[in-house]
Amino acid sequence: MTERNIQVAELDRRAVEDQEVEIVERKGIGHPDSICDGIAESVSQALAQAYLDRVGKVLHYNTDETQLAAGTAAPRFANAEQPEGEKGGEVVEPIYILVVGRATKQYQGTHIPVDSIALKAARDYLRKNFPALDLETDVIVDVKLGEGSGDLQTVFGEEGTQIPMANDTSFGVGHAPLTETETIVHTAERELNTTFHEKHPELGQDVKIMGKREGDQIDITVAAALVDQHVETITDYTETVEAVREFVTELAREFTDREVHVDVNTADDVEEGSIYLTHTGTSAEQGDDGSVGRGNRANGLITPNRPMSMEATSGKNPVNHIGKIYNILSTDIAETVVAEVDGIRDLQIRLLSQIGRPIDEPHVADAQVVTEEGVAVSDIEADVRAVVDEKLANVTDVTRQVIEGDISTF
Amino acid sequence: MTERNIQVAELDRRAVEDQEVEIVERKGIGHPDSICDGIAESVSQALAQAYLDRVGKVLHYNTDETQLAAGTAAPRFANAEQPEGEKGGEVVEPIYILVVGRATKQYQGTHIPVDSIALKAARDYLRKNFPALDLETDVIVDVKLGEGSGDLQTVFGEEGTQIPMANDTSFGVGHAPLTETETIVHTAERELNTTFHEKHPELGQDVKIMGKREGDQIDITVAAALVDQHVETITDYTETVEAVREFVTELAREFTDREVHVDVNTADDVEEGSIYLTHTGTSAEQGDDGSVGRGNRANGLITPNRPMSMEATSGKNPVNHIGKIYNILSTDIAETVVAEVDGIRDLQIRLLSQIGRPIDEPHVADAQVVTEEGVAVSDIEADVRAVVDEKLANVTDVTRQVIEGDISTF
Amino acid sequence: MTERNIQVAELDRRAVEDQEVEIVERKGIGHPDSICDGIAESVSQALAQAYLDRVGKVLHYNTDETQLAAGTAAPRFANAEQPEGEKGGEVVEPIYILVVGRATKQYQGTHIPVDSIALKAARDYLRKNFPALDLETDVIVDVKLGEGSGDLQTVFGEEGTQIPMANDTSFGVGHAPLTETETIVHTAERELNTTFHEKHPELGQDVKIMGKREGDQIDITVAAALVDQHVETITDYTETVEAVREFVTELAREFTDREVHVDVNTADDVEEGSIYLTHTGTSAEQGDDGSVGRGNRANGLITPNRPMSMEATSGKNPVNHIGKIYNILSTDIAETVVAEVDGIRDLQIRLLSQIGRPIDEPHVADAQVVTEEGVAVSDIEADVRAVVDEKLANVTDVTRQVIEGDISTF
Amino acid sequence: MTERNIQVAELDRRAVEDQEVEIVERKGIGHPDSICDGIAESVSQALAQAYLDRVGKVLHYNTDETQLAAGTAAPRFANAEQPEGEKGGEVVEPIYILVVGRATKQYQGTHIPVDSIALKAARDYLRKNFPALDLETDVIVDVKLGEGSGDLQTVFGEEGTQIPMANDTSFGVGHAPLTETETIVHTAERELNTTFHEKHPELGQDVKIMGKREGDQIDITVAAALVDQHVETITDYTETVEAVREFVTELAREFTDREVHVDVNTADDVEEGSIYLTHTGTSAEQGDDGSVGRGNRANGLITPNRPMSMEATSGKNPVNHIGKIYNILSTDIAETVVAEVDGIRDLQIRLLSQIGRPIDEPHVADAQVVTEEGVAVSDIEADVRAVVDEKLANVTDVTRQVIEGDISTF
Repeated sequence: MTERNIQVAELDRRAVEDQEVEIVERKGIGHPDSICDGIAESVSQALAQAYLDRVGKVLHYNTDETQLAAGTAAPRFANAEQPEGEKGGEVVEPIYILVVGRATKQYQGTHIPVDSIALKAARDYLRKNFPALDLETDVIVDVKLGEGSGDLQTVFGEEGTQIPMANDTSFGVGHAPLTETETIVHTAERELNTTFHEKHPELGQDVKIMGKREGDQIDITVAAALVDQHVETITDYTETVEAVREFVTELAREFTDREVHVDVNTADDVEEGSIYLTHTGTSAEQGDDGSVGRGNRANGLITPNRPMSMEATSGKNPVNHIGKIYNILSTDIAETVVAEVDGIRDLQIRLLSQIGRPIDEPHVADAQVVTEEGVAVSDIEADVRAVVDEKLANVTDVTRQVIEGDISTF
Repeated sequence: MTERNIQVAELDRRAVEDQEVEIVERKGIGHPDSICDGIAESVSQALAQAYLDRVGKVLHYNTDETQLAAGTAAPRFANAEQPEGEKGGEVVEPIYILVVGRATKQYQGTHIPVDSIALKAARDYLRKNFPALDLETDVIVDVKLGEGSGDLQTVFGEEGTQIPMANDTSFGVGHAPLTETETIVHTAERELNTTFHEKHPELGQDVKIMGKREGDQIDITVAAALVDQHVETITDYTETVEAVREFVTELAREFTDREVHVDVNTADDVEEGSIYLTHTGTSAEQGDDGSVGRGNRANGLITPNRPMSMEATSGKNPVNHIGKIYNILSTDIAETVVAEVDGIRDLQIRLLSQIGRPIDEPHVADAQVVTEEGVAVSDIEADVRAVVDEKLANVTDVTRQVIEGDISTF
Repeated sequence: MTERNIQVAELDRRAVEDQEVEIVERKGIGHPDSICDGIAESVSQALAQAYLDRVGKVLHYNTDETQLAAGTAAPRFANAEQPEGEKGGEVVEPIYILVVGRATKQYQGTHIPVDSIALKAARDYLRKNFPALDLETDVIVDVKLGEGSGDLQTVFGEEGTQIPMANDTSFGVGHAPLTETETIVHTAERELNTTFHEKHPELGQDVKIMGKREGDQIDITVAAALVDQHVETITDYTETVEAVREFVTELAREFTDREVHVDVNTADDVEEGSIYLTHTGTSAEQGDDGSVGRGNRANGLITPNRPMSMEATSGKNPVNHIGKIYNILSTDIAETVVAEVDGIRDLQIRLLSQIGRPIDEPHVADAQVVTEEGVAVSDIEADVRAVVDEKLANVTDVTRQVIEGDISTF
Repeated sequence: MTERNIQVAELDRRAVEDQEVEIVERKGIGHPDSICDGIAESVSQALAQAYLDRVGKVLHYNTDETQLAAGTAAPRFANAEQPEGEKGGEVVEPIYILVVGRATKQYQGTHIPVDSIALKAARDYLRKNFPALDLETDVIVDVKLGEGSGDLQTVFGEEGTQIPMANDTSFGVGHAPLTETETIVHTAERELNTTFHEKHPELGQDVKIMGKREGDQIDITVAAALVDQHVETITDYTETVEAVREFVTELAREFTDREVHVDVNTADDVEEGSIYLTHTGTSAEQGDDGSVGRGNRANGLITPNRPMSMEATSGKNPVNHIGKIYNILSTDIAETVVAEVDGIRDLQIRLLSQIGRPIDEPHVADAQVVTEEGVAVSDIEADVRAVVDEKLANVTDVTRQVIEGDISTF
């Protein structure tokens, strides 16, 4: 094997942390785009696992095209009079979700029930992640999986596994460390949807967080869907909104000394009764459509200050889809380098594939770095290169981790 | 009120029991057409009930258009090696069911979630009736309910209920008593799907029974889907087929002294392994499409020897759809007359509506009778007329019973 | 070959012409159920022809399950002010038509584009038959064709063609001659949709005709959709309705000396502006759903006075679907017998198949006849038998004629 | 009115032209993602125009969610034997396109036929742009438009038009001038699909161009679908591929003095017959799905070297969707500044909205510039500011131009 083409150089811009204006966004797991990402990736995992179980290797598929058409809902406070004695309102017209993609349906005489697997994976994902969503009334999951080209069948998981070849000229990019604003935006959504949600089941999964930093002023804007069955009255509603504000404010203070201002549900007009109350915890119930690859990038954020790949990472085949692999791997490399090598203020890893070459030998692996004061690129170049090299050598770990669901793709 | 126009006359043909050739068919509840009938009627009941609960009256709807597009399945004997350690095979491509119809979505400011109600009713029906059908993998239920004309809203269930007006020129027909062959065909399916099924869970719901009588020879042909998870081997399969044959043969003997011959799954070729084994208990899993109104008439049978209505009874609005009401009512009248009046060998009741007249005042109610030997029509005319008259007077009982699910429509 | 089992006997009832009450209905080609029948049969013809062209024989398919979900329309008189300077109103929500069925997609290495063929056939049928329907705005045609069981591939059209075997126990029934009422109902729709339509393009294709005879009084009720772009004002509308009434009245007089009364669009309330005006010429544009096999039988009529088969004739494979073949053939036999043999007042032909036997050898072919006064069954028995025998011998003619579109199936 | 907040500053990085590695991509109009973009934007234009025509203002809608599920095709050289005497192959399973979105269906008593308008716009777009795509056999267009929230109705086009308020915190970014590589990639696709296509109808619309520059070496990789009916043999195919290569090479030389290498259809294996031959000119016919917002940004390119917005520009409402407006406007501003102000080597315009403020008064309009040698930012600051200010003052021009189709969104 030839030596890998790994370039380490100085990044020709300031660290994002030092730029004047910074914008960051995260669409929570209940945002319609994220719902599609989550379903697409769940379907992908289920298919990959099924192929491994049944034919011992992952066959060709791509399921990165889930489309969600919003429903209509009539949320109601839990103490309002209800037509059937239930608490809260109802979905009037179900959300429609169409899982689209390609998958190999037959291999050497073995039929693989890809449509049934996709259907189950999508419904399981919804059931697990959206406790207020009633799968019997609130959502229709449809599936349209075609077969791709027959010559794209890929070998993975066999004895004597070899490294797959790149199927495309593609590009992945990763960054580390996250800036304070990025950290706050990402952590806030994750914590709201776990720690906070456990105590406050009235918080729905559709939490969208926008961070804007101008100099040393950080503004965090949260749009958070509340779930009607857990909200008795408007007072409950405003109390929860305030609790979210305090929770995020405190959380932010852990990560920054800058001034932080948090707004929650700014579009509300409480007097008019125009508030962000939902029945299911997601705006997909009322007018917000969604699809895969329109929201968070592979690191969980939308960061216009940084180079981003347009590739939809969720739903793609983790064995041979080079865009998916390189986006995840470059992020992983960046994080690992920063964890293991001191003196880095901002690091950008780019991986560029070359069609027909093994995926562990990119056309170029390009590490661009802003060092901390007093550190030269040459001081750390060897260490950076070593991490990049080792990660590339173990590129198939990414595939394995993705199949096992250990890596979030959005 | 004017006197009802009730005609009682002699039927100008022999009793069906006395005809030379008789053909009777019943599609069991698991036949794809019957699945559609059952869903359509369940959706209808759920909508009617929801309207009553929410606005105190049944509004305009018609849901008599469910379409089923068959799936693909790979059934396997329960003791065969399985990909995931489960028993039996699997559905490869889910069955697709599209519930089509019209329903009023808004009434005086109240929104009625008709799509969600329909979705739930359809899925509940499937769950309740098809134990081997996994709703998470084997079937996709989609819903497409439009709104009908706004001026068709009907009043029902209010204080001072009045009799609705006929909305169409339509026709209902009922018969009694069933012939021996009809009784055997109908009872056999009902017993197989209840009594027999309890002891033999390997019998699926898709039981289709054909009866043919030539003179005094009755041939019963049963096509019965078996469920793979309960069938270990081909020996189990053939034993169950034989058990069905014996069960139906014995059952038939209760109802006739004629010669009876029963065949089960005659298309099987056991040597070739070409047998009627399914994963879900219905042929909808493998290539048999279905839709509403294509199978059994309102009395549960297809009887080419008797006049039949083409109306699809299942799924129609039981308040104002005169075709549905008159098909059910004429059958009810015929059965009641025969139960209460002696001397009848064959009775046919026809009800013909007149647009714009109350439905308890048909244009004509026409009872045609073949009397038993020694009985003249004039002997029983008054009794027959009395039953017809009373049943018509209580026509809205039909609506009530249908909404409550007390009357089978297929 | 054994002699065919042909029975000729007296019909044990009066001729329908002589019964006291008679009911007949015909749904015109623009009725939503008939639209589905027409599409299903067109798709069937196109597929059969494509199979013959490409592999020299008709392969397994069944496309008898088209579902139509109604649209929404806003018809307007042609002289009303229009949003875009066009004449007449518009379709607001397109009609949705789903073609469902099974078709063999591959045969000995040849791929047959069955979905594309079905799509084109359906759209061509609509374009040809519905001049006021704009295929770019008014209708969505979707297709869902699965593959059936692989072992059902049928041989047809090869050198040394043999007679196919019956694939099912099924039943066909035909009658002749039509009664006066039947003739009027059938002819009126056919003439309205051809002769009358040529002079009156304002008459849409959705013409539904109900005939009721009580003794010697025939009532014909016509429901006829008018097309807005050809109707300037309410005066035009009422003039056309009157023209239809006169046309049908005159037409009826050609076929009967009985008293005839014709009503057209009786549900109209001209004062209220509640009239049967459409944009496309069919009620499918506004709330009337449809599906295959719910309307006219193979002879073009719904005749509750006569035995009918429940089989949907349209869309079925004419090579091996015995229900389709026998329904068409029994009608053809009845008409031919009546044309060639004198002295018949009413004739009913029934054909009953036997699984596994060649289709020209039915289990029984049963001719039941009401002779004219002075004629005994024995006088004509031989002649009847000869026609039946010859028609059965040439049973594959039916298949050929159906594929070529020479026989109407609804 | 307060003064607009316009910042002009130095860009803290090298001009992209001067960076070491540059990657640029353009998906041509026939790429499945671009097909969706094009349909979404056409539907948007048609709806906006219909609202203006019918109610004098643009109402709430968003149609940025078209989903394409690929078909299956069997392309064949034009001189190959054909089943029906046609030239070239065929689509076996049609492409399925689902137009999803929200649109106001009723306004002050006026019904707007949004579904029909969307259907027609989508089909017209396909017909106009894809000459080899047969709309009767090759594609199914389906539409699922819900209604959004009623309170989002927007005023536009009335007398005394006022500037709309921003409905969201959003972000737009534009750049100018294009680098050489960007210019080549963008121009090559545009010229191939116009000038070249006129002479070479065998070139399909699915042209994907990847540009990679390392230092002064530019590699252009073209993937170009050829259309079978215009390609007689493999020789024709290779000749066209070579013609594309020469065309792009010459074109590139107009824009750069750097070394340029062009590859076309590198994945071909001519010996094996594995080539990029299609029947319709797009890979959507065979396995490549697509959706809106996954491909080109508003300036027609994917440029990972530059900040990009994740917003899908196509299909969004151009009156009030601030993400769409600011992405288009920032690009327009950047281009105008560079055209009117000398001394700029690289310019980046960012517009950040503020909810509830008029859209001509962004929270910040931020112009970052790399000046040419010898030019200071202060030398040009006033001129830049003046252009930005004027463009913002005329922000509604963007809306108008978008509605009229004068601005490409992808």
